[in-house]
Amino acid sequence: MKDILKENERIDDLEFKNLKIIQNSDGFCFGIDSVLLSDFAKKIKKGAKVIDLGTGSGIISILLCGKTEAREIIGVEVQKEVYDMATRSAKLNKLENRFKIINKNIKDLKNVFKPNSFDVVVTNPPYKKSNTGLKNEIEKKYISRHEVKANLEDFIDMTKYLLKDKGEFYMVHRPDRLVDILYLMRKHKIEPKQIKFVCPNVEKSPNLVLIKGIKNGGQFLKVEKNLYVYNEDGTYTDEILKIYNKEIKK
Amino acid sequence: MKDILKENERIDDLEFKNLKIIQNSDGFCFGIDSVLLSDFAKKIKKGAKVIDLGTGSGIISILLCGKTEAREIIGVEVQKEVYDMATRSAKLNKLENRFKIINKNIKDLKNVFKPNSFDVVVTNPPYKKSNTGLKNEIEKKYISRHEVKANLEDFIDMTKYLLKDKGEFYMVHRPDRLVDILYLMRKHKIEPKQIKFVCPNVEKSPNLVLIKGIKNGGQFLKVEKNLYVYNEDGTYTDEILKIYNKEIKK
Repeated sequence: MKDILKENERIDDLEFKNLKIIQNSDGFCFGIDSVLLSDFAKKIKKGAKVIDLGTGSGIISILLCGKTEAREIIGVEVQKEVYDMATRSAKLNKLENRFKIINKNIKDLKNVFKPNSFDVVVTNPPYKKSNTGLKNEIEKKYISRHEVKANLEDFIDMTKYLLKDKGEFYMVHRPDRLVDILYLMRKHKIEPKQIKFVCPNVEKSPNLVLIKGIKNGGQFLKVEKNLYVYNEDGTYTDEILKIYNKEIKK
Repeated sequence: MKDILKENERIDDLEFKNLKIIQNSDGFCFGIDSVLLSDFAKKIKKGAKVIDLGTGSGIISILLCGKTEAREIIGVEVQKEVYDMATRSAKLNKLENRFKIINKNIKDLKNVFKPNSFDVVVTNPPYKKSNTGLKNEIEKKYISRHEVKANLEDFIDMTKYLLKDKGEFYMVHRPDRLVDILYLMRKHKIEPKQIKFVCPNVEKSPNLVLIKGIKNGGQFLKVEKNLYVYNEDGTYTDEILKIYNKEIKK
């Protein structure tokens, strides 16, 4: 198995359907946001054609391969090294036939795919504007976290291009960007239909938000009850245990 | 006191600073939304000039007279009978010098007030689109609940006209309209800065949302922790008791 790993890389067991993932200890490692997004999107229909914009290590796509009967998932990753790592993770999981990664900026997909050609777009995009944060972060972490290569509007504009009519869009982001998110989704005809906030506990304000949109969908939003990560005593809530323990113990 | 009341009207004691309100038993009576909005807006600065768009019975303005040191509050009410009732409530509370009501459609204020002339706009507008709901409701209830005389964009567009630069906007509405709200606020330069959802209890999704915006404000939203109305055992939460019992026992 050694030859599948490069310097500073490791294999993590997702403890779910024997899935594994390669991560780089110096790079951006997946967090609860990706796990929650794959759970939020788990009702993707059998046979669906899915695209994961900014797939990174491939964590969301790999989990979706386990949680859904999606026919094909395309991961798009701008960073060559990260793209390469995700490709090896697909191979490691023998998912090459369902999960294919391409090394592109998500802004440059109009020459690659026909318009209206996907049933589902999933994305965990960079959360922060490119002019914020510490510039001396390791470059690949900085690119994963900040809107350097593409900004939120680029992600949503490309979603509009890629999705079929009534196609589904699933995203995780930060609540402080909620106005940007809802404004840009409506502007680009990806109507927000469902949002769910994630809070550390019942005493804290949310630090993540899960959003579902439908291309050309009707105007009616359902705000779900909050998802709380921890109980008052610091243990995980049942909802989180269900998402993690029974499916991907982490 | 009898001559201050018309047919089907009653005086309700707000049990807060000896404030009272006249309501019509056949009309739209105030609910928790107005009480929560007046609490949400209670940090209005001393001496502020405030306008309450669609004041109805005047409940929000009367509570704000008690909770704040706002210098002047103008209530705008399109329905003649309701305007007349609110005017009598102002008199009953001896607030004529601070709370003045005008009988106008909120769309017709550009000939009445100069632009950029208010520090604060508060509003509990009709929640429902005009083509929804039972058409055989009593007309004044229907107008209070549905966007018959003015729609959400009319309220926000007029807010932009009335507010000074960096003036504050406080609104209560339904979560299912959140995309409309945030989209229209940003479109009209009333940047959403703070939102707080209100849920019946921790197991239920929100049924109200409180929003604060700033005219020409910077783009950064704070999503507050939820406000829950009831505990699991059906009693009021401490947060609600604090808003009600200590201030306006209802």
